[in-house]
Amino acid sequence: MKLLQAVRQGEVSPEEAAGKLQMQPFEDLQYAKVDHHRGIRQGVPEVIYGEGKTAEQIIGILGAMQEERNVLITRLSPEKAEKIAEVCPLRYHEIARLALARPKEIENPVGRILVVSAGTSDMKVAEEAALTAEALGNRVVRIYDAGVAGIHRLLSRMDELVQARVVIAVAGMEGALPSVVGGLVDCPVIAVPTSVGYGASFGGVTALLAMLNSCASGISVVNIDNGFGAAYQASLINHLGGAS
Amino acid sequence: MKLLQAVRQGEVSPEEAAGKLQMQPFEDLQYAKVDHHRGIRQGVPEVIYGEGKTAEQIIGILGAMQEERNVLITRLSPEKAEKIAEVCPLRYHEIARLALARPKEIENPVGRILVVSAGTSDMKVAEEAALTAEALGNRVVRIYDAGVAGIHRLLSRMDELVQARVVIAVAGMEGALPSVVGGLVDCPVIAVPTSVGYGASFGGVTALLAMLNSCASGISVVNIDNGFGAAYQASLINHLGGAS
Amino acid sequence: MKLLQAVRQGEVSPEEAAGKLQMQPFEDLQYAKVDHHRGIRQGVPEVIYGEGKTAEQIIGILGAMQEERNVLITRLSPEKAEKIAEVCPLRYHEIARLALARPKEIENPVGRILVVSAGTSDMKVAEEAALTAEALGNRVVRIYDAGVAGIHRLLSRMDELVQARVVIAVAGMEGALPSVVGGLVDCPVIAVPTSVGYGASFGGVTALLAMLNSCASGISVVNIDNGFGAAYQASLINHLGGAS
Amino acid sequence: MKLLQAVRQGEVSPEEAAGKLQMQPFEDLQYAKVDHHRGIRQGVPEVIYGEGKTAEQIIGILGAMQEERNVLITRLSPEKAEKIAEVCPLRYHEIARLALARPKEIENPVGRILVVSAGTSDMKVAEEAALTAEALGNRVVRIYDAGVAGIHRLLSRMDELVQARVVIAVAGMEGALPSVVGGLVDCPVIAVPTSVGYGASFGGVTALLAMLNSCASGISVVNIDNGFGAAYQASLINHLGGAS
Amino acid sequence: MKLLQAVRQGEVSPEEAAGKLQMQPFEDLQYAKVDHHRGIRQGVPEVIYGEGKTAEQIIGILGAMQEERNVLITRLSPEKAEKIAEVCPLRYHEIARLALARPKEIENPVGRILVVSAGTSDMKVAEEAALTAEALGNRVVRIYDAGVAGIHRLLSRMDELVQARVVIAVAGMEGALPSVVGGLVDCPVIAVPTSVGYGASFGGVTALLAMLNSCASGISVVNIDNGFGAAYQASLINHLGGAS
Amino acid sequence: MKLLQAVRQGEVSPEEAAGKLQMQPFEDLQYAKVDHHRGIRQGVPEVIYGEGKTAEQIIGILGAMQEERNVLITRLSPEKAEKIAEVCPLRYHEIARLALARPKEIENPVGRILVVSAGTSDMKVAEEAALTAEALGNRVVRIYDAGVAGIHRLLSRMDELVQARVVIAVAGMEGALPSVVGGLVDCPVIAVPTSVGYGASFGGVTALLAMLNSCASGISVVNIDNGFGAAYQASLINHLGGAS
Amino acid sequence: MKLLQAVRQGEVSPEEAAGKLQMQPFEDLQYAKVDHHRGIRQGVPEVIYGEGKTAEQIIGILGAMQEERNVLITRLSPEKAEKIAEVCPLRYHEIARLALARPKEIENPVGRILVVSAGTSDMKVAEEAALTAEALGNRVVRIYDAGVAGIHRLLSRMDELVQARVVIAVAGMEGALPSVVGGLVDCPVIAVPTSVGYGASFGGVTALLAMLNSCASGISVVNIDNGFGAAYQASLINHLGGAS
Amino acid sequence: MKLLQAVRQGEVSPEEAAGKLQMQPFEDLQYAKVDHHRGIRQGVPEVIYGEGKTAEQIIGILGAMQEERNVLITRLSPEKAEKIAEVCPLRYHEIARLALARPKEIENPVGRILVVSAGTSDMKVAEEAALTAEALGNRVVRIYDAGVAGIHRLLSRMDELVQARVVIAVAGMEGALPSVVGGLVDCPVIAVPTSVGYGASFGGVTALLAMLNSCASGISVVNIDNGFGAAYQASLINHLGGAS
Repeated sequence: MKLLQAVRQGEVSPEEAAGKLQMQPFEDLQYAKVDHHRGIRQGVPEVIYGEGKTAEQIIGILGAMQEERNVLITRLSPEKAEKIAEVCPLRYHEIARLALARPKEIENPVGRILVVSAGTSDMKVAEEAALTAEALGNRVVRIYDAGVAGIHRLLSRMDELVQARVVIAVAGMEGALPSVVGGLVDCPVIAVPTSVGYGASFGGVTALLAMLNSCASGISVVNIDNGFGAAYQASLINHLGGAS
Repeated sequence: MKLLQAVRQGEVSPEEAAGKLQMQPFEDLQYAKVDHHRGIRQGVPEVIYGEGKTAEQIIGILGAMQEERNVLITRLSPEKAEKIAEVCPLRYHEIARLALARPKEIENPVGRILVVSAGTSDMKVAEEAALTAEALGNRVVRIYDAGVAGIHRLLSRMDELVQARVVIAVAGMEGALPSVVGGLVDCPVIAVPTSVGYGASFGGVTALLAMLNSCASGISVVNIDNGFGAAYQASLINHLGGAS
Repeated sequence: MKLLQAVRQGEVSPEEAAGKLQMQPFEDLQYAKVDHHRGIRQGVPEVIYGEGKTAEQIIGILGAMQEERNVLITRLSPEKAEKIAEVCPLRYHEIARLALARPKEIENPVGRILVVSAGTSDMKVAEEAALTAEALGNRVVRIYDAGVAGIHRLLSRMDELVQARVVIAVAGMEGALPSVVGGLVDCPVIAVPTSVGYGASFGGVTALLAMLNSCASGISVVNIDNGFGAAYQASLINHLGGAS
Repeated sequence: MKLLQAVRQGEVSPEEAAGKLQMQPFEDLQYAKVDHHRGIRQGVPEVIYGEGKTAEQIIGILGAMQEERNVLITRLSPEKAEKIAEVCPLRYHEIARLALARPKEIENPVGRILVVSAGTSDMKVAEEAALTAEALGNRVVRIYDAGVAGIHRLLSRMDELVQARVVIAVAGMEGALPSVVGGLVDCPVIAVPTSVGYGASFGGVTALLAMLNSCASGISVVNIDNGFGAAYQASLINHLGGAS
Repeated sequence: MKLLQAVRQGEVSPEEAAGKLQMQPFEDLQYAKVDHHRGIRQGVPEVIYGEGKTAEQIIGILGAMQEERNVLITRLSPEKAEKIAEVCPLRYHEIARLALARPKEIENPVGRILVVSAGTSDMKVAEEAALTAEALGNRVVRIYDAGVAGIHRLLSRMDELVQARVVIAVAGMEGALPSVVGGLVDCPVIAVPTSVGYGASFGGVTALLAMLNSCASGISVVNIDNGFGAAYQASLINHLGGAS
Repeated sequence: MKLLQAVRQGEVSPEEAAGKLQMQPFEDLQYAKVDHHRGIRQGVPEVIYGEGKTAEQIIGILGAMQEERNVLITRLSPEKAEKIAEVCPLRYHEIARLALARPKEIENPVGRILVVSAGTSDMKVAEEAALTAEALGNRVVRIYDAGVAGIHRLLSRMDELVQARVVIAVAGMEGALPSVVGGLVDCPVIAVPTSVGYGASFGGVTALLAMLNSCASGISVVNIDNGFGAAYQASLINHLGGAS
Repeated sequence: MKLLQAVRQGEVSPEEAAGKLQMQPFEDLQYAKVDHHRGIRQGVPEVIYGEGKTAEQIIGILGAMQEERNVLITRLSPEKAEKIAEVCPLRYHEIARLALARPKEIENPVGRILVVSAGTSDMKVAEEAALTAEALGNRVVRIYDAGVAGIHRLLSRMDELVQARVVIAVAGMEGALPSVVGGLVDCPVIAVPTSVGYGASFGGVTALLAMLNSCASGISVVNIDNGFGAAYQASLINHLGGAS
Repeated sequence: MKLLQAVRQGEVSPEEAAGKLQMQPFEDLQYAKVDHHRGIRQGVPEVIYGEGKTAEQIIGILGAMQEERNVLITRLSPEKAEKIAEVCPLRYHEIARLALARPKEIENPVGRILVVSAGTSDMKVAEEAALTAEALGNRVVRIYDAGVAGIHRLLSRMDELVQARVVIAVAGMEGALPSVVGGLVDCPVIAVPTSVGYGASFGGVTALLAMLNSCASGISVVNIDNGFGAAYQASLINHLGGAS
């Protein structure tokens, strides 16, 4: 937040900031409140969670946002995307069910986020993560279909693994990928369980539990299928490392 | 079973066998029924599950069994072992909480069962499996503390992995070991989840679920901490491959 | 794996093998990586898990595989099967939702795998197991609708039970069949819980738990409805026993 | 209830009964209310659930009950039993943790309740059921250690199975016994899951679920380890069949 | 079973019976085995569980059954019922999704089974129970919509409660009805949880658990929505009381 | 809160209050922060949750609190109570494991809170609720051991039920009491599940779920064994009704 | 209830009341019993739970109710609403899926119930609560989209929070809102978990559990998505505070 | 790892590195394998997980490690600490159950990790995190007892929140703290659920689930009570930001 950054830079005292925090305007659309003090850093998009909102509501929120910003819309069905595209420039990614409204080219993506996934079916979550990370201004490398039952596939990409500043490891079923990756790299690993599997995979719960119990250090976990959340945190981490 | 082997060898018709099956004597000790038609193959011990039985009950069951047989007692506390040792020759393994009563040397162990475990704490289950397999007449190789977060440890023993006729893979926490092993070998893998871990490991449930959802083929799973069960099945499999 | 077999036969040192393992080519189709070093034994098919893949993706994978191999496709809907059949010879089994692409006759099936199931509704999983086992080169015997509430049905087939080299026991609801079978035979039993049932069967979880807790020795368990996985392991076991 | 029996016999109209029902005195001991209108049939004991009550509280409740009645006390520790025995005649059964206060001989036990259990460790629950049933005036037959992995043990007692008016089937682990028994008999079966087992037995939950999903007809289930409850209902059923 | 009744009457020795048991013919329809030694008592129908069977399969099973028997088909959709009705006389009950094929009038229903249910939505399970019980030759009384939040509704039918030989208590949501009924009557109560409810009712699990933990004595429980199972056991119990 | 009451009475504007809220001093004891702006209304005690705090820590917190206030300490073991009593006047209730430090007589308790509990073992939770409510200045009526299996006990206290301004209904096992009470009264009912029970009561989870699914209106639920929480909310509700 | 109010006012003795309670007429519609002694206070509507009832059944129940009353119908689909509107004046709220039949203006709503919700998607439950509370005669204030991740939104409405007599806090996902609100206000808070979320939100279970474990005092919880239940209890509480 | 860093710096090619990886020596202590290629960066300690290892085993592992390194031992009981201190310099922290063997002063801690915890009882986990982070060379700020029910406590430390490079948020019970913190800061938040709570907190599962479902962005989660794991990842992240 701009205000808090001012605090961090010593321009505003924390006490003043805390007071102002409550006073800042946000636009009330009745069905949603649009914050005008989030994400004002250059190149960083606003985010709309598309699930459970109608195309009309999304268009309304887009209208209330600043014209010059690009906006990331997650969990967006093709049908809604089509309607929105009629009134606003939209770049839609079907596999990831994700769109960029008023898309702009990210000019100087920073650092390196590696997105590695276990199976073909995990790709939709992996792509949600990769596309989100790119939209947030990060350089992204993808390694897909590298499940632990074929460990040689992962080892053959060892060079890319060790160059990552942060890894997003996406897997369903037994969710073992982050443990193996976490043993190979020396950077933070964000594990994303997916709902891929059947029977005792319980819609991703098995992968989630396995990841939480990883024997490798340096791993943390987000909700099932939450590619966006992993990418958001990965971006915060990757930007800490500076622009190179 | 001797009877059923006779059937298999064509000495007895299946119909006769089924009839006899109901007539065979077993000794009724009131608190337990001792089968006299189990495990009469040379060198194969009887088995007593020690948990929830008193030392006195176990001694009683030992008394009812044929004198010349060696007997495997699982889940046996050191206290009970001490009492039983007073009346019967007993070789006790404390880590595995397992004893051999009237122990005999296994003369020609067959095949090769590999027992691989993930962490130091999984050793008690791995040893239950390894010692059981040895008592059942199998050649056993152990690779311990080879968790997936240090995959190079496993790869450095590749030669032993590929020589196994059947692998028993023991792991707690995220239970990823069998998946990685299953991708490296070409023989049946029996996965044993252990109760090692804390928090969301739920006493081994996470490892159990992960193993059931393994993306590798050729893996099946036994109950949490059931080293004995894994070894029993592994022995049946290993013996199919003959004496070499 | 051919390479690992070379290792086993002493033609290649394990160290060499481990090194080569990382170098072996696999074809990258973007949405899937096709391994060219799996399953090169005579008569053994490649396997494609059909769930969550489009007909087009499956056709692509088929194209990347070696022409002369037969290929097993599991969890395949009739609609997709129809599309694939237009471009590739396909033998489709509707109950098991399983297909053989470029099917070849298995000439000398080995050993004997018994597939026994509890109820009429378990048949689709039992058939997935039986057909998979046949495709993998095994002789298969079926005993269906032999639930434990009618124990005499099972006993009447005693002769076939004792001739099996490995048994696949398929059951939903209370999942008691493997325990009863495990008490009657002297060979490995692979238990397959099915999602058949309602209410407190929880989509197969009850059967799964019951099987994991079996009081019979020699039983291991695979994931709910995983007929393929059971057959794959059963085939590995059955082949250990040799060609007879 | 005496009153309700009067209703059943037409001596009192239901409307009068319902009114009286609210007026009947019960003695208020502050920590417990002692009903004086329960169980006044000849030979049927009062029941005290011992768990969580002090010896002093139990003695107080005994004092408030009619002198001439025998009283069944369940879930009673040996320590409490000893204290109570100092002030009141008491017959204590340690395995079942159950006592009869002011015990009287049951003169003409009726019918036939069969109590069948799977393993040695299930005996304490089976005995709670058997002793309760005897105290409630029933003829009881016991078949213990007859788990389904040794089905011939059960078949060898076929004659006793078919003579039962009601069966109580007690099992832990996979809980398969009631299903097999239910397929062999033609009378009601009450299934009692026990907390015997480890790992994925979850303290009896697996057995409970298995029993609820039994494929045999005529089976109902009580709470885990609830031998008393099974016997109480079995007694009601057995008495319906009359005195023979 | 006729055979076992012969045993009970001393006409056949148990040993002979056990032997014959394995030899009795049953017709093998490939997808189902039809037992010819079940339910041969006068007036008692055969039972087909309709779920997961096609209309064609059901017609096939009907054809294999003895012509003169009436047959109860449970969990039958209206569509299948219509198809079956074209080839076989059928009386269909839509709410209970249950049919009687070749229906016959039950001439002398015995005893009294009370079916009491909590809410309007529980009626479909209650009717499955009531209609099954009637088909099995029992006199049935219904009390519906008598949930515990309006306890006076239940008390107003007190006269009918006390006349029952066995009660079937059907409830969803919090499943409290059997506890209240069990405190009012002096006969066996069979509790049937239903999947009625939302949120934390978990499809009937809450009601199931509540019933298993009932503080009233004399209650046992069947699977969620299993009206048929409750009625089957209730019928066995009710018939013990004789013909009056 | 005093401040917020000033707001409510118009003496302070909400904006001023929100600002001040962040500035108010609280004493930092390192292991706990003591708020000086909570509960300053006459006669209302401070509250310390005793679980997991040492006697020394509790004495420290007491020292930091205003001398003239009485203080409620919940979940306090007898051992800790004894130590605290050495340095501070303390009234300890062993069953409820609850103490009042610097106890004062509540002079004019208001309204009427009814605490009703199902079984003897639920009394410790019921007493925690009743004593807390009294300490918070409420008139309290107790009805204990009034489980739904003996509904006449509850009906015999109908007069007290209808006079309550709010009811706290405490029950373990099947948790049915609040539903029955909720159908009899016309005031808010706060349901407290207890951990009383065994087997499928799952430490109070069954009672909790049952209460959440109550078919009666006007019921809300607190955490398992949370007698304090129920009483705290009941007191807020009861005080709304004024002093009578 | 009118009768019970007479008791409370001393016009009728409790004993008389309890007797009469059983005799009061209720109309039996076969599929539902309509109580004529509920909710006879002026302005308070009858309530019909629409889920699982046909439009025809609802019309039948409406017909059996007193003509002059307004009736609240919850969980009503637009299709059923349309059918009912043809025969009865109906005001339908689509978001809340709730209707008022024979709607009347509430003339003097009392007190103040605050309905606060966390996210846009929680609005349908929040509206069920708000509309129900209004129909029951309460003044209602709404604060929507005030999730805890934007705490300043909540603080900016501090003035409305402190004026509430009772708060209904509605949230899905992590369900943290009631804890934060409970720390800001000094009145009862009723927490409503919603099924909003995905993955490990388990259809509202996570929010439910979080609310039950709130560290704030004065909070109780209702079933997932049960906006009606929260409003019903809130109305009882709010009316205790009188008419102002 | 030194090797991998060489790779990153271009001194060694990735292919060479992967090859060497399998060859590196590690010391085999039979019960544990000590890696000599982990954590060789200056000032970073080795780590031993103390749970389930004997004091003797830990001393053995310490002996096998390089003399000059300091070693962090987690989950260490006071008894074991005392034994180890006899043979090796040891700094033991009782609340966190954590020790530093051969402790050295961290000379230039970098960045700023904020550890914030909800309640007094969460302190043991928070201290495990804080002490671990300090041992790994990070500057650490602590804010304890700042639960969301007293949100002003958190707001009063706003200045410290905004200065953090990464936040570790520790909470039990409803686990809401990370969501509130995540809404206030603009840096990565690692959430640590604790097992603090009772009843429906399920040993930390509720807090875990709540954190996984956080409505704030930038949050990831580790296992219950895993303060070490959170600190390890936080240290990796904090070091990305450089030395300032």
